Amino acid sequence: MITGAILIGAKDVSREPFFDAINPATGAVLAPAFSNADAADVDRACALAEAAAIAFADLPPEARATFLDTIADAIVAIGDPLIERAMEETGLPRARLEGERGRTTSQLRLFAQLLREGSWAQVTIDPALPDRQPLPRPDLRRRHLAIGPVAVFGASNFPLAFSVAGGDTAAALAAGCPVVVKGHPAHPGTGEMVARAITAAVASCGLPEGVFSFLPGATNELGAALVADPRIKAVGFTGSRAGGLALLKIAAARAEPIPVYAEMSSINPVILFPAALKARGAALGPAFIQSLTMGAGQFCTNPGLVIAIGDPNLDTFIDAAAAALAESQPQPMLTPGIHASFEKDVEALESHEAVTPVARGCVGDGVNQARGALFRTSAARFLADPALSHEVFGSSAIIVTVRDMTEAARVIAGLEGQLTATLVLDAEDEPAAAALIPLLERKVGRILANAWPTGVEVCHAMVHGGPYPATSDSRTTSVGTLAIDRFLRPVCYQGLPASLLPRSVAPDNPWSLPRRIDGVLQAG
Amino acid sequence: MITGAILIGAKDVSREPFFDAINPATGAVLAPAFSNADAADVDRACALAEAAAIAFADLPPEARATFLDTIADAIVAIGDPLIERAMEETGLPRARLEGERGRTTSQLRLFAQLLREGSWAQVTIDPALPDRQPLPRPDLRRRHLAIGPVAVFGASNFPLAFSVAGGDTAAALAAGCPVVVKGHPAHPGTGEMVARAITAAVASCGLPEGVFSFLPGATNELGAALVADPRIKAVGFTGSRAGGLALLKIAAARAEPIPVYAEMSSINPVILFPAALKARGAALGPAFIQSLTMGAGQFCTNPGLVIAIGDPNLDTFIDAAAAALAESQPQPMLTPGIHASFEKDVEALESHEAVTPVARGCVGDGVNQARGALFRTSAARFLADPALSHEVFGSSAIIVTVRDMTEAARVIAGLEGQLTATLVLDAEDEPAAAALIPLLERKVGRILANAWPTGVEVCHAMVHGGPYPATSDSRTTSVGTLAIDRFLRPVCYQGLPASLLPRSVAPDNPWSLPRRIDGVLQAG
Repeated sequence: MITGAILIGAKDVSREPFFDAINPATGAVLAPAFSNADAADVDRACALAEAAAIAFADLPPEARATFLDTIADAIVAIGDPLIERAMEETGLPRARLEGERGRTTSQLRLFAQLLREGSWAQVTIDPALPDRQPLPRPDLRRRHLAIGPVAVFGASNFPLAFSVAGGDTAAALAAGCPVVVKGHPAHPGTGEMVARAITAAVASCGLPEGVFSFLPGATNELGAALVADPRIKAVGFTGSRAGGLALLKIAAARAEPIPVYAEMSSINPVILFPAALKARGAALGPAFIQSLTMGAGQFCTNPGLVIAIGDPNLDTFIDAAAAALAESQPQPMLTPGIHASFEKDVEALESHEAVTPVARGCVGDGVNQARGALFRTSAARFLADPALSHEVFGSSAIIVTVRDMTEAARVIAGLEGQLTATLVLDAEDEPAAAALIPLLERKVGRILANAWPTGVEVCHAMVHGGPYPATSDSRTTSVGTLAIDRFLRPVCYQGLPASLLPRSVAPDNPWSLPRRIDGVLQAG
Repeated sequence: MITGAILIGAKDVSREPFFDAINPATGAVLAPAFSNADAADVDRACALAEAAAIAFADLPPEARATFLDTIADAIVAIGDPLIERAMEETGLPRARLEGERGRTTSQLRLFAQLLREGSWAQVTIDPALPDRQPLPRPDLRRRHLAIGPVAVFGASNFPLAFSVAGGDTAAALAAGCPVVVKGHPAHPGTGEMVARAITAAVASCGLPEGVFSFLPGATNELGAALVADPRIKAVGFTGSRAGGLALLKIAAARAEPIPVYAEMSSINPVILFPAALKARGAALGPAFIQSLTMGAGQFCTNPGLVIAIGDPNLDTFIDAAAAALAESQPQPMLTPGIHASFEKDVEALESHEAVTPVARGCVGDGVNQARGALFRTSAARFLADPALSHEVFGSSAIIVTVRDMTEAARVIAGLEGQLTATLVLDAEDEPAAAALIPLLERKVGRILANAWPTGVEVCHAMVHGGPYPATSDSRTTSVGTLAIDRFLRPVCYQGLPASLLPRSVAPDNPWSLPRRIDGVLQAG
């Protein structure tokens, strides 16, 4: 089932030099060897994608919905071998990966529902007013149309939900954009299994083969060639800030610059309010550590910063958190490189004179094991060194003590853009929290109360995004149905005869889309 | 009424070195002298804008709607002096400017209506599912929120509708973003009059003064400082490609890059289909020339390229167009600089060996008079030199003859992104046109049939935008209500107590906004 091939449309390609998949929990090499896609593969995949773009974009929404459902079915049909391979390649536990598979398939099915509902096309009609004075108004119709072929970069930390058939792929295919995936080399076998599920769905739905290609590879050159290809019209990326910024630079330097949706880094501040801390500081400590260490802290929304007034109630929280962390079992990280970066970043904090180490997790005896790390410092010291607010990818957090909520606001104001902010509060804390909300709304994409940010619901209202540098584009989300907007652009038709109008804006509304007519929404 | 001042919030400021307004029809200097805003003025305007941002964004939509209506009333209240000053500063005729004033005020009122209707906030609620298995779903609410202070660059060619209170300003204020306008030096008196109407509306509506500032100036440094200011969160620009690209570069180099909505250049292809040409070639010629020479051709949507099969029917069209152009009266262009550029570009075409001059307009006896220019060439020659597809700002067009519609498709495929494409066709031409539509949809923002592109309706369905380099961002429009999306970003609230929720997503829906609940739209 896994051959190590590059999947270019319907065709398998092998290409040297091969690279290896590694089991991060053991360091063992996993068979088979994987092809490294190169610039010629990018060229062929993009040519096929371009050839498929118009037919795929112009399909009835029901046909694309069926396609997405078919992909979901095909992923489920792989069965346990997918989970087992993903466990081997990522070191993540079975329950987590089974949950992630459910999330991936339900995400595809949610976009299928969205297509059937039809609002995504934003059909807007201003009918002709032939008798208007001083000038008649022509018939004007607008719809949103697929932007063109999209490059998706699989993320290391969600081998299913943010990878080959993850959120960006689901949103782009829903929009009607062919997708070329640059597979992440940390889980190439998992990637290939999912890619084959997609290519099987392309075939069984009778779609042009260029709708999907899968380019595994371990080189930066591969991603650079893909983003630079003139046929690619948008890019979805989840990964490091350095990686995201490199792609942004390539995209901006093209003859035709294109949008890059890069989700890059976030430390996800958690604000512990006084009444909540007093009432349940001892219970909050272990709950926080559970969120911090879940999945070895390898979440975009991992809570890396805690802000609270420095008083005995905070000490209770810290003591409880330290005790929970000290008992926490180490977990293998996703790759040796990610583990090495984590260790380096934690060591830098341990030797930073402005920061006090609070606790570490247990020492493990395998390779690439991440021990959680907790630090504390004061607001003044935190504000004095921007490096302290940089993301440490993994289970590391800093508790910043403030004198009062005014100083908390100063700490928040000094932060870069973030994916989330969490308020831990009781009823008495609400006035203090209310004062911070307008500030937080301008710093983050999602504000939570009394929940941990590591849970990201796939739904209509979700925003998994935020101001730069959390993402490169605060106007969108990478999770939830709003993500379809990333891959659409508006087109207007003025005075066209009915025979020339696309089906989505045709007078008889053959696809039963909801339409805004003269500014008033009408059901489909 | 016109003092030449910089308007920073509620305060007038004068600053040397002054610059002059010029009457382009006579070359005469118009009093008074105008202040050149500098970096310190940018700093103060942006500080005020930031101070006003949260309060302005959080106003009830009705309050911002009233504000927009008040601005429209205040512009109308200026009366004829506004039209007279605009005529003096631009050389444009009275009827055009009166029409443009109507468009400007109706644009403001349309955004007021949009605010009252409420869909713009995109309120989306996924209610809590406490009993869901395996995990409960929290309450999730999303709304679109103002992105922050916006810099607007007034355009030279629409001193009212794309300038101080033009489309970008109306959309940004509607979204809840304070606006800092960099006034265009070609119509500073007109700009000041309109700016004073806005500041009067700010005061009479009791809004914070930082909601609006007006920075006139004749230097590139002023615009550069404004785009670089960290408090500015988005930029709206209509102008030259060089100007737009310069602003994009500044915005991308900021510590926090921001979106720049630049509308830059377009030659707006017109495709004349065989049956239409045969039936009414002689009538189409003068109609085309009327669109080409209207306002001295100084429209973003001016038809600069005509594509048609080279046959006797086309000759009839060309002869009629040439005759109409030869009789067309010259008009003063907006500035001596624009006129000099036009003359230089036309001279380059006249001496280009691949191009044949067809006709010029009458010679004028005033200064800065633009004589329309019409050229012809073959598809092969046109495709061989990309310079022939560059915009000539003014009334200059090239007719490209093709052998058949397949060659027409090749010419279209070779074009850069455009604002519009126009189909001139009869019923028999529809199959040939249908074959081009998918190609055109991917090249332009608006496709017209049997109308000239120079008319741009301000409505819900309009798209005045298009792929790069027509604009810097094909996902938006600068005309029509969809433009509000430029200045909004989504924010999600998870599990917040009702007291902490913004009014737009509060359970009791105090602003009666339409809401999407569990994916189903409900009226407000």
